[in-house]
Amino acid sequence: MNDKQYSMKESLLFTQRIGQLSKALWKSIEKDWQSWIKPYDLNINEHHILWIAYQLNGASISDVANFGVMHVSTAFNFSKKLEERGLLKFSKKENDKRNTYIYLTEKGESMFLNIMSEYNPNNSAAFSAALPIKELYGKFPEMIEMMTIVKHIYGDNFMEIFESSFTNIEESFTEVNGQLRPKDPVPVD
Amino acid sequence: MNDKQYSMKESLLFTQRIGQLSKALWKSIEKDWQSWIKPYDLNINEHHILWIAYQLNGASISDVANFGVMHVSTAFNFSKKLEERGLLKFSKKENDKRNTYIYLTEKGESMFLNIMSEYNPNNSAAFSAALPIKELYGKFPEMIEMMTIVKHIYGDNFMEIFESSFTNIEESFTEVNGQLRPKDPVPVD
Repeated sequence: MNDKQYSMKESLLFTQRIGQLSKALWKSIEKDWQSWIKPYDLNINEHHILWIAYQLNGASISDVANFGVMHVSTAFNFSKKLEERGLLKFSKKENDKRNTYIYLTEKGESMFLNIMSEYNPNNSAAFSAALPIKELYGKFPEMIEMMTIVKHIYGDNFMEIFESSFTNIEESFTEVNGQLRPKDPVPVD
Repeated sequence: MNDKQYSMKESLLFTQRIGQLSKALWKSIEKDWQSWIKPYDLNINEHHILWIAYQLNGASISDVANFGVMHVSTAFNFSKKLEERGLLKFSKKENDKRNTYIYLTEKGESMFLNIMSEYNPNNSAAFSAALPIKELYGKFPEMIEMMTIVKHIYGDNFMEIFESSFTNIEESFTEVNGQLRPKDPVPVD
């Protein structure tokens, strides 16, 4: 293989580096994410589905599977569970009769926004761990290498949804008394 | 809170960024890791334990739990399973009679090295995704932001083992016919 630009050892070292780091980082984030949503009797995939439905203002199961990084069957089964709890509804789109889309119900949106308002950065170890970088450079790390790798694994569609999710938070939320609140509040159960 | 250096929105944006990226990256790495070790009837935690025992040339259950990012009970239970399969042995150290250490048996070391020799970077999506960065900059990304965050979450002891694991690969392996082989081969079953 004359065109190989790396040795086996070099590639194992990189694989080991990214493997250890991403396992360690994800396990910490997973733990904090679980604690955040625990009072609502949701697991991470369920909360992720509500989040995607909110972000995209209606999402196909395939959007959920892609962006939520879960199997299509997982995306479908958890969405069904959320529908049974009255948090999501399934329906077709005017301009796309083939796919089924999920939408937050009023109850689902209200729960999602309650969870957002209870977001506390002090409960996130990854956030606290990034503060020294923010102090040093004046902004939070962009994780540009990680983002480039994720982009090359999951493709442009994933990154578009990823980027749009930030605009969406920018536009939809405001800070009131140290809590995140929607700019256009909906009635809360 | 006058000393707060960030807004709630800013912190949610960062938490969302690192959460999405680390979930997506880890799910991809997890999948490839599972495929790599599947022929050996090991799960990721079990393989990670063998790896740590090899790296540290004997590891306490607490080392395994820390560096493997698992509960102490998980580390202990999987180590016991590996002992039952004849891959690990438990014993005390001369200079530390309080803690139990795990060591690879000959069978365990032989299995670990076989797995290493079957390592194929082309089966790692994260590796392939990092190649454009390697082409651009001439080296694999160091993931320095991710590493800094992991360091602040898990502490110096974690990072010491992390760093020593690279030296260990450097020193222990060599490339033969495109496969990773130990420099001092042990008998293979």
